[in-house]
Amino acid sequence: MNKLGKLFLFPVPILEESGAEHIPEYNLQLVKELKCFIVEDAKTARRFLKVFGYSPIENAEVLLLNEHTKGENIMHLIAPLLKGENMGLMSDAGCPGIADPGADVIKKAHEKGIEVVPLAGPSSIVLSIMASGFNGQNFAFVGYLPIDKAPKIKRIKELELLAVKGSQAQFFIETPYRNAQMFETLLSTLSPQTKMFIGKNITGSNQFLKTLMVEEWKKMPVPDLHKIPVVFGIYK
Amino acid sequence: MNKLGKLFLFPVPILEESGAEHIPEYNLQLVKELKCFIVEDAKTARRFLKVFGYSPIENAEVLLLNEHTKGENIMHLIAPLLKGENMGLMSDAGCPGIADPGADVIKKAHEKGIEVVPLAGPSSIVLSIMASGFNGQNFAFVGYLPIDKAPKIKRIKELELLAVKGSQAQFFIETPYRNAQMFETLLSTLSPQTKMFIGKNITGSNQFLKTLMVEEWKKMPVPDLHKIPVVFGIYK
Repeated sequence: MNKLGKLFLFPVPILEESGAEHIPEYNLQLVKELKCFIVEDAKTARRFLKVFGYSPIENAEVLLLNEHTKGENIMHLIAPLLKGENMGLMSDAGCPGIADPGADVIKKAHEKGIEVVPLAGPSSIVLSIMASGFNGQNFAFVGYLPIDKAPKIKRIKELELLAVKGSQAQFFIETPYRNAQMFETLLSTLSPQTKMFIGKNITGSNQFLKTLMVEEWKKMPVPDLHKIPVVFGIYK
Repeated sequence: MNKLGKLFLFPVPILEESGAEHIPEYNLQLVKELKCFIVEDAKTARRFLKVFGYSPIENAEVLLLNEHTKGENIMHLIAPLLKGENMGLMSDAGCPGIADPGADVIKKAHEKGIEVVPLAGPSSIVLSIMASGFNGQNFAFVGYLPIDKAPKIKRIKELELLAVKGSQAQFFIETPYRNAQMFETLLSTLSPQTKMFIGKNITGSNQFLKTLMVEEWKKMPVPDLHKIPVVFGIYK
């Protein structure tokens, strides 16, 4: 049997304007040894490779993965690994395998006996969990909530119950142009004493990460969340 | 009102033998500007500060936090912040605020209006979530399971239900000297087709991260998990 390649999971900066300052040196050395990358967006990936000091950039072979890539196409993506070549997997922001389509490739890699090597780096979700001051022994990230108002409110109430009665901090995200509406819905749905975390523009020069009770948020000027990447959290 | 200090959350290496290779340059520059640190263990903290290039190490003032530090003592720890001095918070392994007592200090900081700044770095739990190939859109970390056999089995079945029916990947940890026993209990409790992730010695030269179905784990040589840091995960 051929020796299999290894699949390295490379975090990339959270914000497009960032350099490599939040990326560990280990990753920056390792990336130079690879030729073949599975990425969400070719242009973004090439920009990040440049930021990592990868050169010449033309040497990088970039294979595309998105949320619609399934079955046979995943097998095609991991073909170089099966032939013994090491590969890198990159998200278009933050850590692969967390709130991105990377998990499908990683799952297939495990099924084929390929060694998966995760690398440390920035993730807006992880940095939010750290900064919230909520429960680091028990937390969940639940992705997106329903879009329509009634099911969204029902889901927020479910999450509040898990947070308050179940002592499990709950984190979630929203499509950026709906953030302001989500903020309003949270304020009008949650109990006044429930704690709410907002993390926006994380790692940016104007980052804002704050935990307050809902009744305190109501007294604050409304933060500008429109079209900005935001992580929401709730806890007791 | 006095200007408040900022509380920086510094990840440290996961393994004692590691250098600073998994720590971003941003953190290594920033740490040099601080004098006052809240830490779990003074000796470990001083060793990591040395690894970060902090010098002279005698200049670092180290305040102790552990799981028994409560109320008034937390206020004492954050006193420098209230006087306007920036501080660093460090766990004894991985990221502060994730499976460590740091959350209590961070919570108090938010209550006092102190800015909390999380920094990227290694966390065995986060690297496990990435590497598992489970569901990056919906996952939970639930800390330790009950010690006694009957409630432990009950809890494992609850988590399997959340993972399989609820599509939420479940991650947890165990006291290292009970890892081998936890592995056996998982194999005898979970359904054969349930997927189980084991991550051990993460970031170490002999790291092992693998996802297999329970029936496949049963056919494998039993991995040596005794007294080694391990993260467990289950999913469908």
